[in-house]
Amino acid sequence: MNGIANGEAHCNGVSANGVSANGLNGVLNKKQIKTNGHIENNPDDFLTQLLDLLVEECVVKGTAVETKVVDFKQPTELKKCIDFNLRDEATDDSELIDLCQRTIKYSVKTGHPRFFNQLYSGLNQYGLGGALLTEALNTSSYTYEVAPVFTLMEQVVLQNLATQIGYDESDGIFCPGGSVSNMYGLNVARYQKFPQIKTEGMHSLPRLCVLTSAESHYSIKKGAAFLGIGMNNIRIVKCDKRGKMIPEDLEKEIMRAKNDGLHPYFVHATAGTTVIGAYDPIDAIADICEKHDLWLHIDAAWGGGAFVTTKHRHLIKGAHRADSIIWNQHKMMGAPLQCCAFITKHKGLLQDAHSAKARYLFQQDKCYDVSYDTGDKSIQCGRKVDVFKLWLMWKAKGHTGFQKDMDHVFEMARFFAEKVKTTEGFRIVYPEPECTNVCFWYIPPSLRGQEETKEWWEKLSKVAPQIKEHMVTEGTMLIGYQPHGEYVNFFRMVVSNPDVSKEDMLFAFNEIHRLGKDL
Amino acid sequence: MNGIANGEAHCNGVSANGVSANGLNGVLNKKQIKTNGHIENNPDDFLTQLLDLLVEECVVKGTAVETKVVDFKQPTELKKCIDFNLRDEATDDSELIDLCQRTIKYSVKTGHPRFFNQLYSGLNQYGLGGALLTEALNTSSYTYEVAPVFTLMEQVVLQNLATQIGYDESDGIFCPGGSVSNMYGLNVARYQKFPQIKTEGMHSLPRLCVLTSAESHYSIKKGAAFLGIGMNNIRIVKCDKRGKMIPEDLEKEIMRAKNDGLHPYFVHATAGTTVIGAYDPIDAIADICEKHDLWLHIDAAWGGGAFVTTKHRHLIKGAHRADSIIWNQHKMMGAPLQCCAFITKHKGLLQDAHSAKARYLFQQDKCYDVSYDTGDKSIQCGRKVDVFKLWLMWKAKGHTGFQKDMDHVFEMARFFAEKVKTTEGFRIVYPEPECTNVCFWYIPPSLRGQEETKEWWEKLSKVAPQIKEHMVTEGTMLIGYQPHGEYVNFFRMVVSNPDVSKEDMLFAFNEIHRLGKDL
Repeated sequence: MNGIANGEAHCNGVSANGVSANGLNGVLNKKQIKTNGHIENNPDDFLTQLLDLLVEECVVKGTAVETKVVDFKQPTELKKCIDFNLRDEATDDSELIDLCQRTIKYSVKTGHPRFFNQLYSGLNQYGLGGALLTEALNTSSYTYEVAPVFTLMEQVVLQNLATQIGYDESDGIFCPGGSVSNMYGLNVARYQKFPQIKTEGMHSLPRLCVLTSAESHYSIKKGAAFLGIGMNNIRIVKCDKRGKMIPEDLEKEIMRAKNDGLHPYFVHATAGTTVIGAYDPIDAIADICEKHDLWLHIDAAWGGGAFVTTKHRHLIKGAHRADSIIWNQHKMMGAPLQCCAFITKHKGLLQDAHSAKARYLFQQDKCYDVSYDTGDKSIQCGRKVDVFKLWLMWKAKGHTGFQKDMDHVFEMARFFAEKVKTTEGFRIVYPEPECTNVCFWYIPPSLRGQEETKEWWEKLSKVAPQIKEHMVTEGTMLIGYQPHGEYVNFFRMVVSNPDVSKEDMLFAFNEIHRLGKDL
Repeated sequence: MNGIANGEAHCNGVSANGVSANGLNGVLNKKQIKTNGHIENNPDDFLTQLLDLLVEECVVKGTAVETKVVDFKQPTELKKCIDFNLRDEATDDSELIDLCQRTIKYSVKTGHPRFFNQLYSGLNQYGLGGALLTEALNTSSYTYEVAPVFTLMEQVVLQNLATQIGYDESDGIFCPGGSVSNMYGLNVARYQKFPQIKTEGMHSLPRLCVLTSAESHYSIKKGAAFLGIGMNNIRIVKCDKRGKMIPEDLEKEIMRAKNDGLHPYFVHATAGTTVIGAYDPIDAIADICEKHDLWLHIDAAWGGGAFVTTKHRHLIKGAHRADSIIWNQHKMMGAPLQCCAFITKHKGLLQDAHSAKARYLFQQDKCYDVSYDTGDKSIQCGRKVDVFKLWLMWKAKGHTGFQKDMDHVFEMARFFAEKVKTTEGFRIVYPEPECTNVCFWYIPPSLRGQEETKEWWEKLSKVAPQIKEHMVTEGTMLIGYQPHGEYVNFFRMVVSNPDVSKEDMLFAFNEIHRLGKDL
């Protein structure tokens, strides 16, 4: 008795009244059933209404330019807009639907064509469809026994990704995010050089050292801390003005670390840095790694999209020489969160480094070939199925379609950069963007044509946060900003949604001016 | 032009034809649009059809007792049933729908009332609804900026969980699975005792030692290996005949480790062990931890459901004395995968142990109170939203409803155990199950009434795998088996789906006999 008329909202082809009592089994136990056997509170009322909401509000309206990207409320206000509290008593369906509606209303529309705030964006119906079906099938990627289809799918997709990279032989796994994927790299490399790490721990090893560039992602720090290596045992390699690691400085840092009594073992190169979008020069770095017998790991979490471009593949040239690569398809490839592959050319190493051979899960006397039980390669036990959404997108688009999409996002970023470079009041931070990040300052008329003193830069540093505040309040789009190195706050425009058009680029460009011109 | 009539399959209230070209933005770019402007390939055809499939096949049929739990194929056969290969060209919608249908067909129905194979099972429409909406809103739990609603929800739910545990003050985070949650425990405890671990690594610490019971989950081994502690620096504490850690042996092992030059710092107790379902005696263990100044961590990943029972809360008595607790609501509480809380009584420690203060993400000059940006507490960067499905379930059931559900699964397990204990041909392995695992052997008539020699046990060890093979082939239900300690293969019946009935219990019981009686 939830106040919503029985059977009013249901999917075509799924007659709510036609569901037998067995159909939703126990769900019905929780519902009131009239003595005449008629189900008053239809078992699929809630779910069907919710799916209608999902399609209408998230998929259709959530991707429409007329919709706000965000209906922003301060935390204290938002607490008044949604009744977050949990209580002893149950809540009826009509109120739950209302709560879901509010959840959608006040959530950020990340599938919106004017959401440029993070390294993920967009809404692909095949990707979303795959994600939804994954949820409904609710299983764990550890054994063929409970995930037969997804186990085989993972094999095919990881093999496909390895082929894009150019690996002849490979092994891989999907991980919960790029940061954890980087940790996988740190650990399998450590295990390959010092297998005793697994049983004896760090005390049995020399003092390890990790090398990464000044522009790399902060997760390498988190990883070094978590794995017992220590953040201070990371040596930072200098970058050139485009944000690319300087190979000569890498070699210098290797030698310095050795002189300091450290044991360098792992070089973390980046293909598409987080802020600037720079690609480290892989071939030159690989030469140095070979010379010094170091593991080369490429963090292509963001910039891996270049693997499937026709025009920008060169940015990541030499990647097949790396020992391991991480690549998040939930970023530039537009798969729903999370979809992050860790791939290595060293077959069997994941299993060797991580296995614990639990007998209750990985029984050896099963009725199928147990080499299909891949869960022991993981540091997780239960592991979410991340492959299906990507597989379905790839099937839907075909490789050619994915290539076109990736070429398109690169083209849109270059189009935007060109506008920035040629328009008064805009100034690009890094003149030749490699990936699809475009970093720029907006200089409001009040600050133009003045001497660029320390005070001027101080004033400019306040512009981006102020524009962002207006942007958030109006909800017309979202773009991130940050200070970086010696530079004060600037905007980082990120193009990762293949469905954006030149019109969207121009909108973003003009909107910055509209929001900032009176500052 | 995918062969499916235009507009035939669509959700009530979501007129496919009424969607403007802006509605799905770029999705339309990929679709053929007739010159007269009529959209031939309806933009939401695929997604709408998929949602119909999802409701009909996964939710309705997938939970019906008449449906097979699994339509098992050997890997080589399954490769012929589904075209897994990825190609250059795109696949049309009708073929994609067919592939989705096959994916469902050959996937295990984990929501089915006869799926007892893992520590998760069941399908709750509110949980599933929350999971689906989470996918559609596709965002990351790191900043209030992109996840305002979910940030506040996480606060409320974690606080609620802490209240169930009995913590006055607490901090917490959702993690990708119990194994990673255990690693959080290992790391924050290590950081609390030795904050230099973060910057200097394990070399700056004494040789750490972790204590756990012989019945604990294998993830503690994976964690010790991954965090640089080393599996051999785990000391295994003996258990009694019910699988519970023996406190006196814990103290003995602590002393032995110290004598061996190790530095014990972390006691990993279990509330609901994986195979037996035993609850370690928390109060006695807490006394020892206090005496020796050790961090007490409780792995209640599986048995945490007892926190919300009315009758079985005593099993986990003393839990509030632990320094940290992990509790997977995707297990006994029936939330969709994954939903795993790490909770500690030490406020601020997660942030201190894991933060890396990335300036591009956690800007300090945002237009809201940045203490709501909780992402730096995590070892991840992007983090899937795991809270909404649990929050929605809790809202829907109310605390009282959840209590009833949890009481019910315990009752069903005890009912099953009673049947096992009182029926010829069945033999219980651990006579008094504490959690909802019931471990038992089935002894086929051909093995009854004989002397139980080594050969007899050898023969019995083959019974469970053979019954399992029949079970899988017929697809009528799924229950796991394993050898354990000194015991040969036995079945582990797991009750975690609150929607199962006595009828389902009896079915499972009789089915084992039916499948095994002729062996």
